[in-house]
Amino acid sequence: MEREIFAIIVAGGSGSRMGAGMPKQFLKLGGKTILRMTIEKFQSAIPGVRIVTVLPQDSIGYWKDLCMEENFTCPQIIVPGGITRFHSVRNALGRIPDGAVAAIHDGVRPLVSRDLLRTMVSKMDSCRALIPVVPSVDTLKAVREVTGPDGNKCLESIEGVRIDRSEVYCAQTPQIFLSEDIKAAYALPYSTEFTDDASVAEAKGIPLTWIPGERYNLKITTPEDLLFAEAILSR
Amino acid sequence: MEREIFAIIVAGGSGSRMGAGMPKQFLKLGGKTILRMTIEKFQSAIPGVRIVTVLPQDSIGYWKDLCMEENFTCPQIIVPGGITRFHSVRNALGRIPDGAVAAIHDGVRPLVSRDLLRTMVSKMDSCRALIPVVPSVDTLKAVREVTGPDGNKCLESIEGVRIDRSEVYCAQTPQIFLSEDIKAAYALPYSTEFTDDASVAEAKGIPLTWIPGERYNLKITTPEDLLFAEAILSR
Repeated sequence: MEREIFAIIVAGGSGSRMGAGMPKQFLKLGGKTILRMTIEKFQSAIPGVRIVTVLPQDSIGYWKDLCMEENFTCPQIIVPGGITRFHSVRNALGRIPDGAVAAIHDGVRPLVSRDLLRTMVSKMDSCRALIPVVPSVDTLKAVREVTGPDGNKCLESIEGVRIDRSEVYCAQTPQIFLSEDIKAAYALPYSTEFTDDASVAEAKGIPLTWIPGERYNLKITTPEDLLFAEAILSR
Repeated sequence: MEREIFAIIVAGGSGSRMGAGMPKQFLKLGGKTILRMTIEKFQSAIPGVRIVTVLPQDSIGYWKDLCMEENFTCPQIIVPGGITRFHSVRNALGRIPDGAVAAIHDGVRPLVSRDLLRTMVSKMDSCRALIPVVPSVDTLKAVREVTGPDGNKCLESIEGVRIDRSEVYCAQTPQIFLSEDIKAAYALPYSTEFTDDASVAEAKGIPLTWIPGERYNLKITTPEDLLFAEAILSR
């Protein structure tokens, strides 16, 4: 891999689902701030990786203070987030040159393994976009929420749609791209269908390659997820 | 609800994914056997419920001994499991009369709430099949595993299929039916497409009603799930 590698660590969320009064990337896991743990995972797995950290504008000062207090001296390009994850990533991509590799990763996925990171980077010699996915463990139903005649929300079947669980995989991060590709994709107008970076890349016609992810590369978004992550870490 | 209520607790699995040398329904959670905890949840939520426990043939003796040792005196109809979950449930339904309500539940889902059980039973006055579902939290991809030209397994996109996460829900248990309905459905020939009871009922043309499930009504199938369940219980 001749290209320089940038890890965009997306931590632009405000943590409203966590209910902790604190963006979830700043909560502690095993005594360490989640965001720091995530960044350190990339640093230790990929020598020379450049870190781009995306944070809500009003959390940037807090994060800088925290890094100083904890003597966490990793060089970071810090970028303010946007109104959606799409806009946050677009901001970060503005700081990355063409001709590099961009690994876009959720700041609240600290449990990704170094092995997966190394394997994915090495495969970028031969593909343009690499997306980790895990099989769905649930039985899936084609159902949607609708407003009933009484004005209340209810769930109804979507007629004629059957979902075969063996043909549905759940996407994780990091999702890794050639930087010129993903920058071109993020120049597209925003769509609510862009639920991850792969969906943006696909809209631009970039061929995606899938790789088995890790079941416990958990996205920590609720207090229960945090407990779960603690349990996995303490094994 | 005038009908008698039967809870079929399906614990027919051999626990090979748990790697504990012990069917997972017999592992302890918070100091109590998972299967016992599941059964007690139904007993405490639904007065007068009749319990039908489905176990691997070679675990029935072990379970009876365990109940005696722990002085767990809940009356149970114990039924041997079959070669698949479908066959296990079919065996259990053979012990239930028409004109009842059958709640079919995974023995390794001890964290279902009493509130959900009570709410579901009360709704069976006005519907024929009630299935708890939760929204998918993951971005979903239409991907399948194929064997490449080199003989290795790899993942490929399924062309032309886009999955809208807002239209995909994950099914849980208990799935609750009128007993004559679900018995008729389970008289169908076995199909590998029967991944849950709802899929069997649907194949018989029984109208399904969906109800919001619970994110932490976890199916405990791996050691990490067990850690997660411990974490949730210890809140």
